[in-house]
Amino acid sequence: MDPTTKINIPESDRERIVIVGGGFGGLQLARKLSRKDKYQVVLIDKNNYHQFQPLFYQVAMAGLEPSSIVFPFRKLFQGKKNMYIRVTEVTSVDPQSKTLQTPLGFCNYDHLIVATGADTNFFGNENIARNALPMKSVSEALYLRNNILDDYEDALTTPDYDPRQELVDIVIVGGGPTGVELAGSLAEMKKHVLPKDYPELNIEEEVDIYLIQSGGELLKGFSADSSAKALKYLTNMGVKVLLNSRVTDFDGNTVSLKDGRQIPSQKVIWAAGIQGMPLAGLPASATTYGNRLAVDRFHRVKDTEDIYAVGDVAYMEEPAWEKGHPQVAQVAIQMGENLARNFAYRLDKKEPVPFTYHDKGSMATVGRARAVVDIPKPEFNFGGFFAWLLWLFVHLFAILGTRNKLIVFINWVINYINYNQSLRLIIKPKVK
Amino acid sequence: MDPTTKINIPESDRERIVIVGGGFGGLQLARKLSRKDKYQVVLIDKNNYHQFQPLFYQVAMAGLEPSSIVFPFRKLFQGKKNMYIRVTEVTSVDPQSKTLQTPLGFCNYDHLIVATGADTNFFGNENIARNALPMKSVSEALYLRNNILDDYEDALTTPDYDPRQELVDIVIVGGGPTGVELAGSLAEMKKHVLPKDYPELNIEEEVDIYLIQSGGELLKGFSADSSAKALKYLTNMGVKVLLNSRVTDFDGNTVSLKDGRQIPSQKVIWAAGIQGMPLAGLPASATTYGNRLAVDRFHRVKDTEDIYAVGDVAYMEEPAWEKGHPQVAQVAIQMGENLARNFAYRLDKKEPVPFTYHDKGSMATVGRARAVVDIPKPEFNFGGFFAWLLWLFVHLFAILGTRNKLIVFINWVINYINYNQSLRLIIKPKVK
Repeated sequence: MDPTTKINIPESDRERIVIVGGGFGGLQLARKLSRKDKYQVVLIDKNNYHQFQPLFYQVAMAGLEPSSIVFPFRKLFQGKKNMYIRVTEVTSVDPQSKTLQTPLGFCNYDHLIVATGADTNFFGNENIARNALPMKSVSEALYLRNNILDDYEDALTTPDYDPRQELVDIVIVGGGPTGVELAGSLAEMKKHVLPKDYPELNIEEEVDIYLIQSGGELLKGFSADSSAKALKYLTNMGVKVLLNSRVTDFDGNTVSLKDGRQIPSQKVIWAAGIQGMPLAGLPASATTYGNRLAVDRFHRVKDTEDIYAVGDVAYMEEPAWEKGHPQVAQVAIQMGENLARNFAYRLDKKEPVPFTYHDKGSMATVGRARAVVDIPKPEFNFGGFFAWLLWLFVHLFAILGTRNKLIVFINWVINYINYNQSLRLIIKPKVK
Repeated sequence: MDPTTKINIPESDRERIVIVGGGFGGLQLARKLSRKDKYQVVLIDKNNYHQFQPLFYQVAMAGLEPSSIVFPFRKLFQGKKNMYIRVTEVTSVDPQSKTLQTPLGFCNYDHLIVATGADTNFFGNENIARNALPMKSVSEALYLRNNILDDYEDALTTPDYDPRQELVDIVIVGGGPTGVELAGSLAEMKKHVLPKDYPELNIEEEVDIYLIQSGGELLKGFSADSSAKALKYLTNMGVKVLLNSRVTDFDGNTVSLKDGRQIPSQKVIWAAGIQGMPLAGLPASATTYGNRLAVDRFHRVKDTEDIYAVGDVAYMEEPAWEKGHPQVAQVAIQMGENLARNFAYRLDKKEPVPFTYHDKGSMATVGRARAVVDIPKPEFNFGGFFAWLLWLFVHLFAILGTRNKLIVFINWVINYINYNQSLRLIIKPKVK
């Protein structure tokens, strides 16, 4: 499209706030702003739906459908005036003229919020980037699911042991919550589902699940207790956890570790790191650790005007968080809330409030009916069945939409009772 | 793959029955055979799941998720011995050597069942085949859904009236149950959903839904009463039904009718005809009307040995059905059942039973809370709300799997209460 075409959004006498990205931070901000209805709000996202990242791994493991954990923006904002949604990608920003470029034309803003989140970080290794499977979107989770199922189908018609090993073994890189949850979930699948679905394969003997972590413990940032529990749970479930290991290469058939060890596998799930995805056109001086945008405690991006950042793409230091906040949903949501409040204050000529993160704790499931939970104040951690129940309810509550909550709940209950989902489907929309 | 490689299926002293296609007919046959466990059964399908065709239109209309109306074969046959599932395509059959070719290698059979069904028939018009949207698989239904939603997003940023009309108007070709159900469903969407999702567009004025039927009545094969009711329902809902009309061309932007009329639209849904999909390598003399395989009343394909056909791909005449059976689920299911019984009789040295179709009637929904039902014996038809309730229960009962039944039921209830699904998602698995 012609870059001199203006994107079709009505002019208004209100100030226009453009939010790029409808993840946890951007969506929270948009919802609060649209309720107050004091600005014209434009939400731009590549997709027409919000994604609930914490459950991507269940989509990849065929435990839930994508539709149960995503929610269409338009439905969320039905009846909201002065709220415009555009499904497109922002290709660059020009802070001078206060304009964004998109394939649909340009869009000017009075205030710009960068809520573009983070994407997988392959740390510059092109081989790994080309061959490993990331899981930072529901589309990638679905791709991963199809990939795993396709490989098990192929294994059936691969009579030779060595090439079959490449198909059935799965390597997960990164021992954070995503890696741990994936490994636990795969171990359950290996135990309860695969032997029934593939009686022709010797699942018990042949399928190995590796979890590779560069540090000396899993769930970095959790309490030592929780880390140790997660390790114990996974080891008991048969996951081969390699601590202090680092993947140096992956050619699509063999995973090479730093200590020289090699694992034959065609499937490497990369959950080892993320990097911010700031917009092109922002000053280089604004980018800091992990490709994130340096923001002050009012979310203002360094060396810019009327540009803010929230969520995973924002790097903010506050006294209690000298090295920035963890890149998790809670931080993004609270940032979105605070910025929305400050925008409201602005019209009332009130002073903006500096952001303070209220840590509500961390949790991770480790397979069926087990989880670890860390609560910061009072400092306390616990694991096991009740931690898992808490995990379930916290996540169920956080999913958008009554229908989605209900469907996820039913899926979990059925899954808990019969260990055996019916979502192992390789569905690909036809490509014309 | 090397065509001289044998597909990896264990040899057995049982006779091998290979079923190509896991639709209604092939699946029914496979289930009955695997329960008796007297043969080695190989089920070959392109997908790893069975598809419930009667609800494709609800997937396309974002009323249901694909996963709710499909079911994985492996789960269905868990615990069944001597049952082998291979997810691949049969490229040809050699009746002489009793062998099938697939990309995974060749496969020999003692008995072959062709249950490959039917695909969209564009009647040789390449323009239409290239530009129109078919709906004969869940993947195509999903593609259609994405396409409709994409076009409404595009319409928002298309300020000029004429090109916007091409995006918002939808033309359905074919007035059978699929066309009628799609048209009704789209009319509901236009009334209840689109104005809320797209307040920026003038939906009421701008969106037109056309249903084009070559004959003088809708629902050919139904009673005259039901046809008339369907027409009345649709017309009341604002669908522009064009009877005695024929689409002669569609270039992607304009639909040309035989009477010279033109409709500007980028979206033509083609439900105007189907054709059988027999396997390559079968004798030409076996193919008859609608590209179907001529079979006798024992399902044996003409001019072949040990080759059978069931379902939409089979053309059988019996006294009550001199021009063959309708290509519907019930015929396929009953054929699968009869053939399974005959295979069991065969081992008991009993005479095979010729097939007799028991017509249980026909039904079609027309939008929300309305349907038409024809019952053959005693001849009787009715329409309206109770017909719709009956339609719901018959279809709910027929869907495979308790979880699927439950999820579909919940979706229908929520949809009935709030007119407003949350499944309008453009989700495409990432392509690497």
